[in-house]
Amino acid sequence: MGNKNISMAVIRRLPKYYRYLADLLSRDIQRISSKELSEIIGFTASQIRQDLNNFGGFGQQGYGYNVEALHREIGKILGLDRKYRAVLVGAGNLGQALTNYSGFKNAGFNIEAVFDANPKMIGLKIRDYEIMDSDNIESFVSNNDIDIAILCIPKNGAQAVADKLVSSGVRGIWNFAPIDLEVPSEVIVENVNLTESLFTLSYLMKESDDQL
Amino acid sequence: MGNKNISMAVIRRLPKYYRYLADLLSRDIQRISSKELSEIIGFTASQIRQDLNNFGGFGQQGYGYNVEALHREIGKILGLDRKYRAVLVGAGNLGQALTNYSGFKNAGFNIEAVFDANPKMIGLKIRDYEIMDSDNIESFVSNNDIDIAILCIPKNGAQAVADKLVSSGVRGIWNFAPIDLEVPSEVIVENVNLTESLFTLSYLMKESDDQL
Repeated sequence: MGNKNISMAVIRRLPKYYRYLADLLSRDIQRISSKELSEIIGFTASQIRQDLNNFGGFGQQGYGYNVEALHREIGKILGLDRKYRAVLVGAGNLGQALTNYSGFKNAGFNIEAVFDANPKMIGLKIRDYEIMDSDNIESFVSNNDIDIAILCIPKNGAQAVADKLVSSGVRGIWNFAPIDLEVPSEVIVENVNLTESLFTLSYLMKESDDQL
Repeated sequence: MGNKNISMAVIRRLPKYYRYLADLLSRDIQRISSKELSEIIGFTASQIRQDLNNFGGFGQQGYGYNVEALHREIGKILGLDRKYRAVLVGAGNLGQALTNYSGFKNAGFNIEAVFDANPKMIGLKIRDYEIMDSDNIESFVSNNDIDIAILCIPKNGAQAVADKLVSSGVRGIWNFAPIDLEVPSEVIVENVNLTESLFTLSYLMKESDDQL
């Protein structure tokens, strides 16, 4: 049974709790009240209690939270108690940066292969990866039990690549292409649209100016 | 006077409208009904009308929207009718990828200088940029009318760099460091936390599995 009714707002706060709890653990803090957690993380104590109650609570009246247990439980809720096998498609600047970032592997997300459609890129090396021909995506994904695809290609062609990935068994797409992909409902797409983020910044700066 | 009461949900949809309208323009479509726009963009027609009414409407009963005018107006709302001068701090993989991406410049965001604290990086070139010593951030920012800083450094030290940037006049920070920066209320921080995004993907994949 899933927690179907959890709002996206709560879901997007979970990784933040996880990050703050990891910080506390690294500073050897084993126990924290919801009030202290609230001061650190910047949500109200009542917000924190509400958020965590969605998943069964974890706090103990008069004790607060056991940091290690809460970190572990939120990790489980986030699906971080297992490994994921990923492919990265599009070995341009951003694709290379993501391939080179070791933090994802440490969190259990392992890039198994890097693909590009550009003949000049195929065969080149990024880290330990020899860039593979995008024509081989489908066979690689279906033969290697790939869960996740990281899509770092321009919007033209992104839907076609997504279709291939989905039909060969990918269940999650981390999409950096500036396009809203159409996928079956059981496939999850998480978009990172850098341009939209930058435009949000300029909007908020303009609004802030207008207040002055 | 600013639109202080616009919700972040609406604000985050604006760049998406802008992107879809640019697509329509590039296909020479000059006029569109809210129903057609709704089918393309995936929001309900009533949602679209509500969103745009926050900024004064733009639609015309029985005509729909003039695509070019709406694109231009949303651009203005997003603050894209002007140029921004940015510095990028942290010339690692991600910083290099962002420096190399020409789309930001085309949208009016010009990177004026790239900084790094690592002596091995200082003096190297990315594109047309010779990487500058982070020690010179403050003087560069205040002497060059910099609006925006793009922060691509690890979380340790990010707050100290942000403090320097703010005190020398930066009004917006596009923050890729996995830390919640503390800045004065008139300074805008827009966070891109890739790890949190990835963990949201794994959460949603797990939830989707649990539904099966």
